[in-house]
Amino acid sequence: MMISRRAKIGKNVQIGHYTVIEEGVEIGNNVEIGNHVVITEGTIIGDHVVIKESSILGQLPTSNKNMSKKPSEKINGLKIGNHVTIGSNSVLYHGSTISNGVLIGDLASVRECVKIGENSIVGRNVIVENDTVIGKNVTIQTSSYVTAQMIVEDNVFIGPCFSSSNDKYMGEGNDSLQGPILRSGSKIGNNASLLPGVTIGQKAVVGAGAVVTKDVQAHDTVVGNPANSI
Amino acid sequence: MMISRRAKIGKNVQIGHYTVIEEGVEIGNNVEIGNHVVITEGTIIGDHVVIKESSILGQLPTSNKNMSKKPSEKINGLKIGNHVTIGSNSVLYHGSTISNGVLIGDLASVRECVKIGENSIVGRNVIVENDTVIGKNVTIQTSSYVTAQMIVEDNVFIGPCFSSSNDKYMGEGNDSLQGPILRSGSKIGNNASLLPGVTIGQKAVVGAGAVVTKDVQAHDTVVGNPANSI
Amino acid sequence: MMISRRAKIGKNVQIGHYTVIEEGVEIGNNVEIGNHVVITEGTIIGDHVVIKESSILGQLPTSNKNMSKKPSEKINGLKIGNHVTIGSNSVLYHGSTISNGVLIGDLASVRECVKIGENSIVGRNVIVENDTVIGKNVTIQTSSYVTAQMIVEDNVFIGPCFSSSNDKYMGEGNDSLQGPILRSGSKIGNNASLLPGVTIGQKAVVGAGAVVTKDVQAHDTVVGNPANSI
Repeated sequence: MMISRRAKIGKNVQIGHYTVIEEGVEIGNNVEIGNHVVITEGTIIGDHVVIKESSILGQLPTSNKNMSKKPSEKINGLKIGNHVTIGSNSVLYHGSTISNGVLIGDLASVRECVKIGENSIVGRNVIVENDTVIGKNVTIQTSSYVTAQMIVEDNVFIGPCFSSSNDKYMGEGNDSLQGPILRSGSKIGNNASLLPGVTIGQKAVVGAGAVVTKDVQAHDTVVGNPANSI
Repeated sequence: MMISRRAKIGKNVQIGHYTVIEEGVEIGNNVEIGNHVVITEGTIIGDHVVIKESSILGQLPTSNKNMSKKPSEKINGLKIGNHVTIGSNSVLYHGSTISNGVLIGDLASVRECVKIGENSIVGRNVIVENDTVIGKNVTIQTSSYVTAQMIVEDNVFIGPCFSSSNDKYMGEGNDSLQGPILRSGSKIGNNASLLPGVTIGQKAVVGAGAVVTKDVQAHDTVVGNPANSI
Repeated sequence: MMISRRAKIGKNVQIGHYTVIEEGVEIGNNVEIGNHVVITEGTIIGDHVVIKESSILGQLPTSNKNMSKKPSEKINGLKIGNHVTIGSNSVLYHGSTISNGVLIGDLASVRECVKIGENSIVGRNVIVENDTVIGKNVTIQTSSYVTAQMIVEDNVFIGPCFSSSNDKYMGEGNDSLQGPILRSGSKIGNNASLLPGVTIGQKAVVGAGAVVTKDVQAHDTVVGNPANSI
């Protein structure tokens, strides 16, 4: 272990082998941290948190010259609430808030400036891009892709392999990125695709494999490519 | 290396730097283990096995309060046969059996209580969920998603980015999860989606991008959204 | 750190904890290397490169008895240009060339004998298979799958969750693998699927969720399943 003397570590904290904890990290009580974990400066972790092997907490964004979004220089620390579980080989960025009771699966990644509400599930191999807001009691199943600037309200269910996008000009760089909006209680089937900026209404259902090109009304069900009401 | 003195390790076993092997692990002869690997208590590994960098063998399941499936307290150890290769950054759970000659790709994950038959291939970035049974000589290509409670018989071929699901009520919690059944010799094209509980008959073919909403007869070929015979 | 005395390391190189650098590795000046990284023999890294946590550089291919492609015994080293960034938990193989200014996301994998042109972006969780050639200023967004023997020309834009394939006989083993060809400036929407060997013409556009079964002419736009001109 390589634990900074300036990290604040609570009571009854177990730390695995070869784990690196930088200075300025704050860890609550009754926390289990696996082997080969990295926790960087500015990460704040609550009580009763489980952090599995080889996960990386508090990564900073990068870019290259072809990326429209340049990382902000003022990204705040990563905040992890109580009773959170973080899976193995996951990568979480600074500036995000993971609320109490959240479960993040193995091999998942949550980018900067994301908010995830209480008791939500971010499945195995799921990617949540920057600046997205996810409500409470949301389920995002395995290998789904949640794009940037997306809004996912409370009690939404997203099946596996969901795909979303936020750039209708596909890289032409006019900066008007807008992810889809999933209103509360909506349900999305596996491998459905949402185009940039579409809104899925309250308690609406999107069928598996549907390609949603326009807004879906509350309580409606759509299927097909392009998706239409059934 | 951090190797428990109570681990049983065979002849001609190479172990990389910073690898952690817990007590009660059993490793056969002529095994190569990379750097930063974690092997937990109860994992049993055969002969001529290759385990690449940063892989995690023998993880235990977790849950949060919104998950329908709670981890069993009686998960048995992870069993890995002879001549198996496990890719880098992969995560394998306890209670699963990986038969002789299997290849598991980098960044893949195999959850608890899965059986994988001889000489099958679980590709790079593939996820196999809990309680699924995979036969012999099966190929599951890169980034495919194999849901829980699924049956994949011998000689099935699954192209890349395949998606499956097992919960037709999308999280309403009535506990009747049923993954698809892929009969022997069936073939699934890339990015096809299978709805919960559908059966793909013997030697049937599902085209790329097809969305399969009902059973497919043996030897039939289906394409489209929804998928129909051609 | 476990750094071979026979590695050549430039000026102003920062190396994280528990990182392994094998003999014969060459690293330029002003390079940052994270914690838990593995860099194997034969890897050559330029100047101003950033390598994030737990990434693996210079992996060798493997196979099992059911794989049509056996790894060549003469794979050359991995070459990484200047001003390249490599994300966390990524896996890069030997025999590939990553040009100046490339960004590779977290949890991505680039297999053997791939070429990636200057300033291109290989997103988070993207897989690029062996022997594929990617041009300059290409963007491949998150969780996309770029199959083997594929050609991606300059200035191509690929949205998230793209899927491609190269084996129209699905594992029957006649060895005529051919990935799609994406001509310069073409754009592919999120979760589109390309069948083996199709060509997407110059500046053509493939809509989100489209399933492309035949060639698309230059400047044409296609949508649907199967994809047709709009």
